[in-house]
Amino acid sequence: MDAVKKVPATHAYTHVVQYYETDAMRVVHHSNYIRWMEECRLDYMAGIGLPYDKMEEQGLIVPVISASCEYKAATRYGETVKITSEMERFDGLRFFLTYCITDPKGSVLHATGRTGHCFLNRDMKPVNVKKSAPAVYEVFQSFK
Amino acid sequence: MDAVKKVPATHAYTHVVQYYETDAMRVVHHSNYIRWMEECRLDYMAGIGLPYDKMEEQGLIVPVISASCEYKAATRYGETVKITSEMERFDGLRFFLTYCITDPKGSVLHATGRTGHCFLNRDMKPVNVKKSAPAVYEVFQSFK
Amino acid sequence: MDAVKKVPATHAYTHVVQYYETDAMRVVHHSNYIRWMEECRLDYMAGIGLPYDKMEEQGLIVPVISASCEYKAATRYGETVKITSEMERFDGLRFFLTYCITDPKGSVLHATGRTGHCFLNRDMKPVNVKKSAPAVYEVFQSFK
Amino acid sequence: MDAVKKVPATHAYTHVVQYYETDAMRVVHHSNYIRWMEECRLDYMAGIGLPYDKMEEQGLIVPVISASCEYKAATRYGETVKITSEMERFDGLRFFLTYCITDPKGSVLHATGRTGHCFLNRDMKPVNVKKSAPAVYEVFQSFK
Repeated sequence: MDAVKKVPATHAYTHVVQYYETDAMRVVHHSNYIRWMEECRLDYMAGIGLPYDKMEEQGLIVPVISASCEYKAATRYGETVKITSEMERFDGLRFFLTYCITDPKGSVLHATGRTGHCFLNRDMKPVNVKKSAPAVYEVFQSFK
Repeated sequence: MDAVKKVPATHAYTHVVQYYETDAMRVVHHSNYIRWMEECRLDYMAGIGLPYDKMEEQGLIVPVISASCEYKAATRYGETVKITSEMERFDGLRFFLTYCITDPKGSVLHATGRTGHCFLNRDMKPVNVKKSAPAVYEVFQSFK
Repeated sequence: MDAVKKVPATHAYTHVVQYYETDAMRVVHHSNYIRWMEECRLDYMAGIGLPYDKMEEQGLIVPVISASCEYKAATRYGETVKITSEMERFDGLRFFLTYCITDPKGSVLHATGRTGHCFLNRDMKPVNVKKSAPAVYEVFQSFK
Repeated sequence: MDAVKKVPATHAYTHVVQYYETDAMRVVHHSNYIRWMEECRLDYMAGIGLPYDKMEEQGLIVPVISASCEYKAATRYGETVKITSEMERFDGLRFFLTYCITDPKGSVLHATGRTGHCFLNRDMKPVNVKKSAPAVYEVFQSFK
């Protein structure tokens, strides 16, 4: 019997703060943390064999259904952040990821966050991922 | 006895969806809803006598400490959205606003959201708004 | 003989500066002027009967082939800008617009700009707009 | 006599296209190329000993006075771009950089661009960089 390949349930991603991400408070605008979570998430998915451009090509759309962020310590131009993501839950229809945004060493916590996602087809209708994209389903099952 | 001027606890704001706010899913990128909440919030604050540029000039910084959004129905280029904000809570140190993003008639719910805020001085240190900005405190009290 | 309906060769558009458009210099980030030109341009096109969402639905894509901006005086949160656009040239394949970004009264010149555009079909191939979209061609001719 | 340290007149920078940079045409929105030039430019400056956060701390502001971009071939989510920048001219008051945006191998030209910059003090007044920031002046001289 073949062993099921296990995919890592966490992923770390590095982002260099860009000047255009700052605002007049001289810190990164809070909306960009939501974008950083996306950067980390899509890098994570690509790493476990689910590059999002290929998923879209195959007609599987994975929109954000919820996003939240708790801001703990501001980030500034000249800094680099580490975003660590963890697969929290997958129920066959939706999945949820949590995020920690820290300095590169992990000693300063800048923010924590969470996003939720579902699966749609090209017509933006919900799909049963197990049926319509079994290979994707298998990856999500292998987190468990 | 003077009547205390009451400020409205809700505010409605209109935003025309911009093409640059869309993404490759052909809908508005989810991070922009966080920006729309800011647009509505700062318009609201300006309307009740707390224009944010003047607050910053006086050394009162009001950062976002939390933000969340539940996405219900996508928005597209060519649409207009109405963002309705409500003051949920003010405890002297922090305040929280909730948001509803709908079509202009209010018949399609696109998203709901919530943001939390605190008060800082120019050195990004928390301040007691009652002491350091009594006029601002009074406005926040008058929601009740 | 029917008079050809003339469309205005200029358009004025108002934009309220958003806080999220500022950067750590405490002024609007220069990339946003490019976005403001788009806001003005698409509002202009909608006003002359060429709403861009409808054009895309009909398979006519109008990408930006060039963009430039000369920055004269910074803009800040709390300000409103007027963007005036003028149809500079249309040669059947491409068109060019110029822009002036000023304060609402037109007394402070914040920036000038120019964008160039072509016409593509859904496969991102150049099209002869006269043949493939005669109604659009007619509008562009009527500027003259 | 000490040899004057020469700084490289060109710089190459890699950017991974982000999903939030795309628009409803399913390609990267044109305004983001202006931001990519900034990414490349500030990375370049940091590499030759002029990290922009430190320059700002010392009171030297380097705004964009002009920006232009010619778009040649669209970029999409899933792609990586190489931005190559070259110091075109420095006249003591202003400097100009040109940019080439290509695929990583340099075989597909996505865009070319150019930005101009001046030097301001904290009050946003033009400064003579030779007098007010001789170390910065020396770096800019050493391109020649």
